[in-house]
Amino acid sequence: MIDLEDVAQIKKETLPKTMLDLIDMGLIEVFRIQSIIDSLTPEELSNCSYPLSNITFLAPIPKPRKNIIGIGLNYTEHVAESARTLDTSNELPQQPVIFSKPPTTVTATNTNILHNPKLTQQLDWEVELAVIIGKGGKYIAKEDALDHVFGYTVINDISARDCRRSGQWIVSKGQDTFAPMGPVLVTADEIKNPHNLNLSLKLNGVEKQNSNTKFMLFNINDLINDLSTVFTLEPGDIIATGTPAGVGAGRNPQEWMWDGDVVEATVEGIGTIVNTVKEVRDI
Amino acid sequence: MIDLEDVAQIKKETLPKTMLDLIDMGLIEVFRIQSIIDSLTPEELSNCSYPLSNITFLAPIPKPRKNIIGIGLNYTEHVAESARTLDTSNELPQQPVIFSKPPTTVTATNTNILHNPKLTQQLDWEVELAVIIGKGGKYIAKEDALDHVFGYTVINDISARDCRRSGQWIVSKGQDTFAPMGPVLVTADEIKNPHNLNLSLKLNGVEKQNSNTKFMLFNINDLINDLSTVFTLEPGDIIATGTPAGVGAGRNPQEWMWDGDVVEATVEGIGTIVNTVKEVRDI
Repeated sequence: MIDLEDVAQIKKETLPKTMLDLIDMGLIEVFRIQSIIDSLTPEELSNCSYPLSNITFLAPIPKPRKNIIGIGLNYTEHVAESARTLDTSNELPQQPVIFSKPPTTVTATNTNILHNPKLTQQLDWEVELAVIIGKGGKYIAKEDALDHVFGYTVINDISARDCRRSGQWIVSKGQDTFAPMGPVLVTADEIKNPHNLNLSLKLNGVEKQNSNTKFMLFNINDLINDLSTVFTLEPGDIIATGTPAGVGAGRNPQEWMWDGDVVEATVEGIGTIVNTVKEVRDI
Repeated sequence: MIDLEDVAQIKKETLPKTMLDLIDMGLIEVFRIQSIIDSLTPEELSNCSYPLSNITFLAPIPKPRKNIIGIGLNYTEHVAESARTLDTSNELPQQPVIFSKPPTTVTATNTNILHNPKLTQQLDWEVELAVIIGKGGKYIAKEDALDHVFGYTVINDISARDCRRSGQWIVSKGQDTFAPMGPVLVTADEIKNPHNLNLSLKLNGVEKQNSNTKFMLFNINDLINDLSTVFTLEPGDIIATGTPAGVGAGRNPQEWMWDGDVVEATVEGIGTIVNTVKEVRDI
């Protein structure tokens, strides 16, 4: 792992200090940084480099500027399992189903998912590919949509199934630590085809979800086009693109997460986030 | 209107440059600023003062740090009218119903509410008292809740009734300019009792809503207690506390807003925000 602060000092360059700064500057800044790193001597590079084992990973965007934009019911089999066991329709949605997760849901890999048993007895998992918007815009055409993507990460869209209020999902999906994110952000140039990535999830080592982003009902182009018709998209916006089948609510019998459970969410080409459920009591 | 930048220069003091800076510093900073202003000579004061007619009002928090927290179905008669004409239950909610409005919904008084007729043919109004959180926290007790309030403003929670997706309200309530806010933020010390404020709304000069915050089902103490159990509340968080009866969807026949309509939303002790509906076409 290369520390850009060290690089900035050695090369007397001004480099972005946060991921959001970098996103504001765009992918061109990523390429500039790469060329600066390429110009380091082996000794300089060694002085800026740290073994991964010494790194504490934060979420790629620890403090988003607004709520994460979540997409519901975006894989066929998940629509079916949700209709069987939750309150949603078994018809495929005609338009993306949208909800939000506040910035306070974000947590990193190797942290705890906080479970307040007074709020929920139905804590569930959802592995998802998350898209990070680089260039904002309104009315973004489908064919231009991927030009607006800065990069990708993994989100585990933790959902408390018994916390819907008048049908609204924000209490279900918006509690503190309900968006483990990471382990890293992979820039768009490193992902050849975001519509052909395996994604999977294990609970205590047992595989629960395994699918591929090619099965999304609304792909990333569709989502960016639709979302940008509703909202102005802005740099740093995060879109969690929905989860495939295999969530706890859809299983027979249903399965939920409890104190000490370890959940691993993986997307091909990005990596795995590992989180442990920890029971908390309110006052 | 006193320009704090002028005051800072005259008194050689450092004063907050944005409302969010001020909120982070707390009400104690408001009192410090007041005492600095009190120490100005009449001539100095005159040099810092501008007639209201020369002021362009921005929204008090033009760019919130996260989505506005909206409360649905928080006045009895509005629960009834919604159940008659929308897809909500006619039973009173047992817990606050929560949704969100992205930061891109915020607009000031004397601006346009943008109506995209391809997205909605059911553009509706909702006058609301909005609470601005000062001191954040988790598990805030009801009796301490008002200590966490920095101030109050008015929000018109514009809602496109035909834009619900799988029951979720964010497309209905989250479109650009769907949260006119202002005209000003009134600090908590200036509002003796936030639970006894008239609130009303006129469309093209005709009164459509008229009620009082004392009729909230969940009052501000209840809301802050409940919300802080779900999410960590943070300085600058905005809670739109729900609207009373009289929305367009609940009328017989139903009424919607169209290009050129002028909507005025008023809360006693804060003021009136005036906005004009403007039709926009996407590409």
